Amino acid sequence: MGKKRVMLPVTEVDLTNVKYDPGEIEAPHITGFWLKVFVKLVEMPLLGSLIITQLKKQNKMNEMLRDTVIPEPPMFRPEFPPQEPEPGVVFLKEDGKPEDRVDSAVRCLPQYNPNSNYNSDLSPFQYWKIRDYAHSYRQRLTTPSSVAEHVICAIEEFSNKKPPTPLLISFDPEDVRKQAAASTQRFEEGKPLSILDGIFVAIKDDIDCYPHPSNGGTTWMHEVRTVKKDAVSVSKLRSCGAILVGKANMHELGMGTTGVNPNYGTARNPHDLERYTGGSSSGPAAIVALGICSAALGTDGGGRSVRIPSSLCGIVGLKTTYGRTDIKGALCDGGTVEIIGPIASSVEDVILVYAAILGSSPSDKISLHPSVPCLPDLSSHENSHILGSLRLGKYTEWFNDVFSPDISNKCEDALHMFSETHGCKVLEIVIPELDEMRTAHVVSIGSEAATSLAPDLQDGKGGRLTLDSRINFALFNSFSASDYVAAQRLRRRIMYYHMEIFKNVDVIVTPTTGMTAPVIPKSALKLGESNMKVTGNLMRFIIAANLLGFPAISVPVGYDKQGLPIGLQIIGRPWSEATILRLAAAFEGLRLETKQPESYFDILRRN
Amino acid sequence: MGKKRVMLPVTEVDLTNVKYDPGEIEAPHITGFWLKVFVKLVEMPLLGSLIITQLKKQNKMNEMLRDTVIPEPPMFRPEFPPQEPEPGVVFLKEDGKPEDRVDSAVRCLPQYNPNSNYNSDLSPFQYWKIRDYAHSYRQRLTTPSSVAEHVICAIEEFSNKKPPTPLLISFDPEDVRKQAAASTQRFEEGKPLSILDGIFVAIKDDIDCYPHPSNGGTTWMHEVRTVKKDAVSVSKLRSCGAILVGKANMHELGMGTTGVNPNYGTARNPHDLERYTGGSSSGPAAIVALGICSAALGTDGGGRSVRIPSSLCGIVGLKTTYGRTDIKGALCDGGTVEIIGPIASSVEDVILVYAAILGSSPSDKISLHPSVPCLPDLSSHENSHILGSLRLGKYTEWFNDVFSPDISNKCEDALHMFSETHGCKVLEIVIPELDEMRTAHVVSIGSEAATSLAPDLQDGKGGRLTLDSRINFALFNSFSASDYVAAQRLRRRIMYYHMEIFKNVDVIVTPTTGMTAPVIPKSALKLGESNMKVTGNLMRFIIAANLLGFPAISVPVGYDKQGLPIGLQIIGRPWSEATILRLAAAFEGLRLETKQPESYFDILRRN
Repeated sequence: MGKKRVMLPVTEVDLTNVKYDPGEIEAPHITGFWLKVFVKLVEMPLLGSLIITQLKKQNKMNEMLRDTVIPEPPMFRPEFPPQEPEPGVVFLKEDGKPEDRVDSAVRCLPQYNPNSNYNSDLSPFQYWKIRDYAHSYRQRLTTPSSVAEHVICAIEEFSNKKPPTPLLISFDPEDVRKQAAASTQRFEEGKPLSILDGIFVAIKDDIDCYPHPSNGGTTWMHEVRTVKKDAVSVSKLRSCGAILVGKANMHELGMGTTGVNPNYGTARNPHDLERYTGGSSSGPAAIVALGICSAALGTDGGGRSVRIPSSLCGIVGLKTTYGRTDIKGALCDGGTVEIIGPIASSVEDVILVYAAILGSSPSDKISLHPSVPCLPDLSSHENSHILGSLRLGKYTEWFNDVFSPDISNKCEDALHMFSETHGCKVLEIVIPELDEMRTAHVVSIGSEAATSLAPDLQDGKGGRLTLDSRINFALFNSFSASDYVAAQRLRRRIMYYHMEIFKNVDVIVTPTTGMTAPVIPKSALKLGESNMKVTGNLMRFIIAANLLGFPAISVPVGYDKQGLPIGLQIIGRPWSEATILRLAAAFEGLRLETKQPESYFDILRRN
Repeated sequence: MGKKRVMLPVTEVDLTNVKYDPGEIEAPHITGFWLKVFVKLVEMPLLGSLIITQLKKQNKMNEMLRDTVIPEPPMFRPEFPPQEPEPGVVFLKEDGKPEDRVDSAVRCLPQYNPNSNYNSDLSPFQYWKIRDYAHSYRQRLTTPSSVAEHVICAIEEFSNKKPPTPLLISFDPEDVRKQAAASTQRFEEGKPLSILDGIFVAIKDDIDCYPHPSNGGTTWMHEVRTVKKDAVSVSKLRSCGAILVGKANMHELGMGTTGVNPNYGTARNPHDLERYTGGSSSGPAAIVALGICSAALGTDGGGRSVRIPSSLCGIVGLKTTYGRTDIKGALCDGGTVEIIGPIASSVEDVILVYAAILGSSPSDKISLHPSVPCLPDLSSHENSHILGSLRLGKYTEWFNDVFSPDISNKCEDALHMFSETHGCKVLEIVIPELDEMRTAHVVSIGSEAATSLAPDLQDGKGGRLTLDSRINFALFNSFSASDYVAAQRLRRRIMYYHMEIFKNVDVIVTPTTGMTAPVIPKSALKLGESNMKVTGNLMRFIIAANLLGFPAISVPVGYDKQGLPIGLQIIGRPWSEATILRLAAAFEGLRLETKQPESYFDILRRN
């Protein structure tokens, strides 16, 4: 047993004297056969609990949770003090029709210029944006049904590779054709439902999308959980006319950051097919990065993330404020760190999808009191003035704690150019207790996942999980109820620090991930892998927004020396999606290098 | 392992077809030597966990928490939908001065008649109310200093019995004399601070009252936790001029319902000194029931309770809405089921103390959004009309599930007379999943207590607890993080059922306890006892208000055949303290039999 430690009350902590000490995750990197052996050991009654205890000791978990007096009361879910309204925004009706919100969103965008991006010759092609498709449909240059055939062909191509690298793990071409035909007919009748009509969207496998099963990347979830209707956010997209292509691949149960999936095959990073997409929203990111779908919905809880794969695949991913989108119909509903958020190739597309899906659940409205949702008016002349007034907070030691200096350098360059262009300030901040934050987060997300799965994993059914999930659940099941409560006490402390920081800055900027896309070890394809070092690097900057419920966005800012995308993360105050979207759009506008992976065009050309 | 069970979504449960099935708590009744043996067994590494597992199995705990799919998301703290304002009330300023709120409270009371209760001849004495003292001080019939000597003498008398039956476990006569002298001087100067000036109040040992230590009934807590100032609610009383007599006895750490305390001696029930007061607020209830103090502050979390001892001692105890009073400075701060509430001999005294202490903490204001606090205007002509409009809900099978029919009969009689007099309706209700409610509650309160104590109970210091606490903590430490989360899922279900019930009725009425004061086994005095059957009987009707945060009040309605007090409990909607106080005052007004225990007068007469 450790020695009792007493934390100072959070209000008495001297913030001028904080040392950067994020801790390092200590755990072996194991793949293939040895992973199998390790899982066997971990699941043995006594030896297993000794191994887990050792693992927790190395990572000081019991020290932080059991041997420490944490004077703050627990904060079980993010609790937000009232927030100042954001300037220069357009308010949206949370309970109104999604189509109307999308309409308002379109009016927030800069004027559309069909020649800027859209090009009938494919060669210098950039991603088609949603407005490019919308323009083409309305100009009768193409139809949803015609695009559908390309989409279907590309999806099948990836599933049929050897080994398979499926983008979707539940896919019904006929269902896609039917939706596309209906959309095509609406255009023929001149009655599209919204700018999202005929736009192809993928849904992560842990979000219900009728009539597909929701397996969460497992092989068996459909046996114990029947999907009877769309998740709330999916049904909002459907009512806007979006074409839902199927259920996107993911890291099993969202419990990993690489996207490896031995059950169905692992989706590949379009920028380098030998590398991971990042996860857990691997399929959503890959299908968007390939340009096959304009957007996807993912879940973001920390391990399960939209930001990690968006960053690794060079696209844009928005983590919404906790409670801003309705989580009902997702496997992780009832969690305290997860949200549903959009992934797209551009900020403007993220804005359009976000406008469609936002709206908190009735029970969240009672406890979270969300502010009225709004969007930045990017078409207004005020925009540049507002950008200049924003204060960006940067914790330099943390910012620079990355696997390759390319990442921090590229993000630093972007920040520099940004503040030069817009005249805004980058201010130095410090964030104490980053190690405690990681512990509080893993205990929260792990315990909540374990609760949901407990009834289905009894009677030895735990063996139906992939090996890395089994290690994770052995750890999660070792958490005691008082570990959980202690983690929530830490959550209140860390919230306090962040709210203090947000008194001086409007957003916090970090690299999105501490490394670019990692190589997929061959031995991991069949059995998976457990690599906590990679996980640590990928999650380093991610979890504050999950544990504390803040909105955050990842926007691409360039490439490392190997040509792999680098993302910048912007973390905002509670409910400040408008501010981080405004900033992300501005960063995107300053970007010098952009490229779309080639693979999709190869397919298009072949067809 | 059990079989997987799937609960229906709560909105689909057929409430017309609910069977009363509260379950029975299964556990051995052990005292003395055998208790010591049992604790040794329970604390052994492997055997201990087998015993606890068996105990949990008998009580279906794993079945309810681990083998069951609970479709609702967790509710970690009470979440209240917006409530209709109550009629005929006077609003109070939560952030204003406590003295001003107490002033407003006085104006809500019926006109004071000095002859009704106050009598210079002590023989047909009833409890002096706060207004009786206030009148006497202002008329110079007595002074706080003069009363102080009686109070000090009585307190010492109980501490010096053999075996000791202390009302207070931290007591400094000189401190009391000093406070009384200051109060006496204020009266001499004609400047009393409020109607509470010179009123003697005891504070339960788990609420900070400077300069006393807070031991929570243990022998060692002061070594690890220093009291530097009053708890928020105590400081409010102090600023009203109340005289704080010291720290009242309690069941160790509030983890029991009898009030047995082998560390300091067990406070006795003034109605029968061979019986328990009930707990955990044993000292507060005894000192008020004896008439030594006008009021006391207790904590009420379910096991730790103000209502149980108030009922068993024939006085009035108010459990406030979760978050209505500031819990800061109590040992159980940070809990999700506990509140601080007043105990007094009459409803009007409870009202005065409640008015002084109410006011939620800044962090609770963010997450709970309390309604503006108010009091029933009992002086208004409307009062009787409002009483007639109220609908009282009664779940008859539950109501009648008591150890002796005297209890349900007496409560039934009171209800009958009440509805006859005021013309209000008693409506039949049903409450599903009472067994689940109990499980969700014990997991919540137990895990939260275990978290707070973990750092201090490491390195074998658990042995410093009394034996029944050690059994409790062995159970609490066996709860997993996912048990805790599952319990919160149950909490949301049970909240739903109650909010449905509150659509049709204004309050729920039950007996406060399922039994009257139990006899103290001789063998329990030295080592304590573990008697889950008694606990079950005492807690049967208590925990809904804790798990769900509702306000509830216990008001005496008569005596059983042995002359032991019986309490009626009124459970209100969130924030509806005004309504339950109005009802309690009306029940009190209809009461036929009342008596004050004699012991205090014996002491007074001897002096």
